[in-house]
Amino acid sequence: MYKELNPPSRILMGPGPSDVHPRVLKAMAMPLVGHLDPSFLQIMNETMELIRMVFETKNELTLSMSGTGSAGMETVFVNILEPGDKVIIGVNGLFGERMTDVAERCGAEVIRVEAPWGEIIQPEQIKAALEKHAGVKAVAVVHAETSTGALQPLFEISRLVHEHDALFIVDAVTSLGGIKVGIDENEVDACYSGTQKCLSAPPGLSPVTFSKRAQEALAKRTSKVQSWYLDLSMLQNYWGQERFYHHTAPISMNYALREALRLVAEEGLEQTWERHWKFGKALQAGLEAMGLSLHVAEEYRLPQLTSVRIPEGIDEAAVRKQLLEQFGIEIGGGLGALKGKVWRIGLMGYSCQPRNVLLFLSALAQVLEQHGYKTSSNESCAAMLETIYG
Amino acid sequence: MYKELNPPSRILMGPGPSDVHPRVLKAMAMPLVGHLDPSFLQIMNETMELIRMVFETKNELTLSMSGTGSAGMETVFVNILEPGDKVIIGVNGLFGERMTDVAERCGAEVIRVEAPWGEIIQPEQIKAALEKHAGVKAVAVVHAETSTGALQPLFEISRLVHEHDALFIVDAVTSLGGIKVGIDENEVDACYSGTQKCLSAPPGLSPVTFSKRAQEALAKRTSKVQSWYLDLSMLQNYWGQERFYHHTAPISMNYALREALRLVAEEGLEQTWERHWKFGKALQAGLEAMGLSLHVAEEYRLPQLTSVRIPEGIDEAAVRKQLLEQFGIEIGGGLGALKGKVWRIGLMGYSCQPRNVLLFLSALAQVLEQHGYKTSSNESCAAMLETIYG
Repeated sequence: MYKELNPPSRILMGPGPSDVHPRVLKAMAMPLVGHLDPSFLQIMNETMELIRMVFETKNELTLSMSGTGSAGMETVFVNILEPGDKVIIGVNGLFGERMTDVAERCGAEVIRVEAPWGEIIQPEQIKAALEKHAGVKAVAVVHAETSTGALQPLFEISRLVHEHDALFIVDAVTSLGGIKVGIDENEVDACYSGTQKCLSAPPGLSPVTFSKRAQEALAKRTSKVQSWYLDLSMLQNYWGQERFYHHTAPISMNYALREALRLVAEEGLEQTWERHWKFGKALQAGLEAMGLSLHVAEEYRLPQLTSVRIPEGIDEAAVRKQLLEQFGIEIGGGLGALKGKVWRIGLMGYSCQPRNVLLFLSALAQVLEQHGYKTSSNESCAAMLETIYG
Repeated sequence: MYKELNPPSRILMGPGPSDVHPRVLKAMAMPLVGHLDPSFLQIMNETMELIRMVFETKNELTLSMSGTGSAGMETVFVNILEPGDKVIIGVNGLFGERMTDVAERCGAEVIRVEAPWGEIIQPEQIKAALEKHAGVKAVAVVHAETSTGALQPLFEISRLVHEHDALFIVDAVTSLGGIKVGIDENEVDACYSGTQKCLSAPPGLSPVTFSKRAQEALAKRTSKVQSWYLDLSMLQNYWGQERFYHHTAPISMNYALREALRLVAEEGLEQTWERHWKFGKALQAGLEAMGLSLHVAEEYRLPQLTSVRIPEGIDEAAVRKQLLEQFGIEIGGGLGALKGKVWRIGLMGYSCQPRNVLLFLSALAQVLEQHGYKTSSNESCAAMLETIYG
């Protein structure tokens, strides 16, 4: 009645999940040990070290939450905020919007600082909000907006936030492992990510990290964290020396995350960023050579996630369906303010390979021609190769 | 620096996780599709049907949460309870205790009904609490207390709860797939479980189900659910016909759950219960033949998780360490009120095989003898085989 699992072969070039590295798939298939087994405690220790490596931090409170990136987002807000706290949130896409919803559910007073989808939040906007509202506890921005492809610079905002004695929260779901996040360098106080974007692991865990300053704020809470599952005061005893039982860690997913991070360490963190940069820019050159226009200004354009505007008169869903059915290529559609207006093309983690870029550009050109859009896959692929090989 | 993953070979006979079936491990290693891929939507639909099968329910709102059993627990409480609501919770072990903590974090007024660890909550206790406190919204009990090995009968309590127009909440983390849960038959309104106990999958997801009555209560809420990640009003649109994007489902873990449930369907649900019953009782006969005493009265003794009292003068941690190091067998120690007093031996899912019972009894007898406890592994194994084969 229920057949053997037989998923179709895909190349995942949407906004995530991205393709999982074969070595990570192999790690997922390893037999389990118990979550309090001495060998698993060693795995947890090594994973914490590797998460620190990729976040570029010395933060002690660095671990992986047993849920997806959205659980990581909720972890940061439920632990940092108490009812009545003021928080400034940069909203320039779906994930900024989601942060406001999560923060409001914590009983916080949310101050929105907005920019159009695809643009970035300007430091002056944050400065003005901090000056207008006294006693703000935290300021949050999205480093790589998955809904738009915009890259938010962090340092200048971080400086302003700390001048006002607030905590700096960053969403690094789509940035971690793809571009420099630099937790310590950018003085980020609380950050969360996901496994299924630039880290080449399946979705299911959320690496998080908290600065000393954030830890001090957690210690000063006067109310219990509203989520038992995400309460860091208990989780740090589980991941720390005490190994105090909290929940049963997802063993196989932790195997996967460790292997994914080991791959980043082997390639080298900077080399990983360079790969995302080079092939992302090559994709963008190829798209522009096809006559398509990119939604985000070049200055703030992410390499690992590109929003491309849909040419007039093209049925965007039909194009995506054809790419999926004829070539097994998944790309994403637009969300929210960009629904029906852009495609989102990811080149993250193991998906970020030149052969995928070449295949995608060729396939897109063919499909677009069939939909009546005149273009040249030849020129597009040449522009792409020129970017890579000069 | 970080070596290839090389976990030691274990037989997991503790309170969970249990051994994962090889077919489930294989499913975990399958390449991923996107979480909105048509083929994954089919996987989600089939998984919902299979979860209904194992819960024995027709409940429409039946899905798997993207977190472990504790996230399932939190899902039930944050969705059902609003600040000020009264909830009666049966506390006869660690997981009853945890429910009170989770419910209090929802701002609920918790009415505790207690029994010693290892005993069950009597229907008269629930009746008295319902009569004493007007307007109780829900009553919660733990079906299979993982911290004690006690089996809580459900039907009589369910009847009382509904006479008082309250909702009946059941923790089925350790019972689902091991013994009959019977959601519809027992008129349970909200129930959560885990993948890593009797279902032979890794930890990481939590199957949940909600009755029509519970759904009506959710629809009548006047406040937002405090957890965005666990908010069923959004999750049912993600799992339902709308397929409205919420979070990125853990693809590989969902592959694993589907395969694990497919194994239950192939064996037959009743046959699965019978296997747990037969080999669990065989283990218990073997332990008693060794002169050991079982902590839970026979009437309420779970087959899939057995608490056995530690003989006087035995260093319980040293025995567990020896079993792990010499034979690769993991069993659990006691928690809370039973810390240092019992061992917890699980026979769940794929771990529930006669060869594991025989090996464990032989190993335990040898180790206990080395610790100065006189016993006979011969008699113990004979008693076990007698129980199975008559």
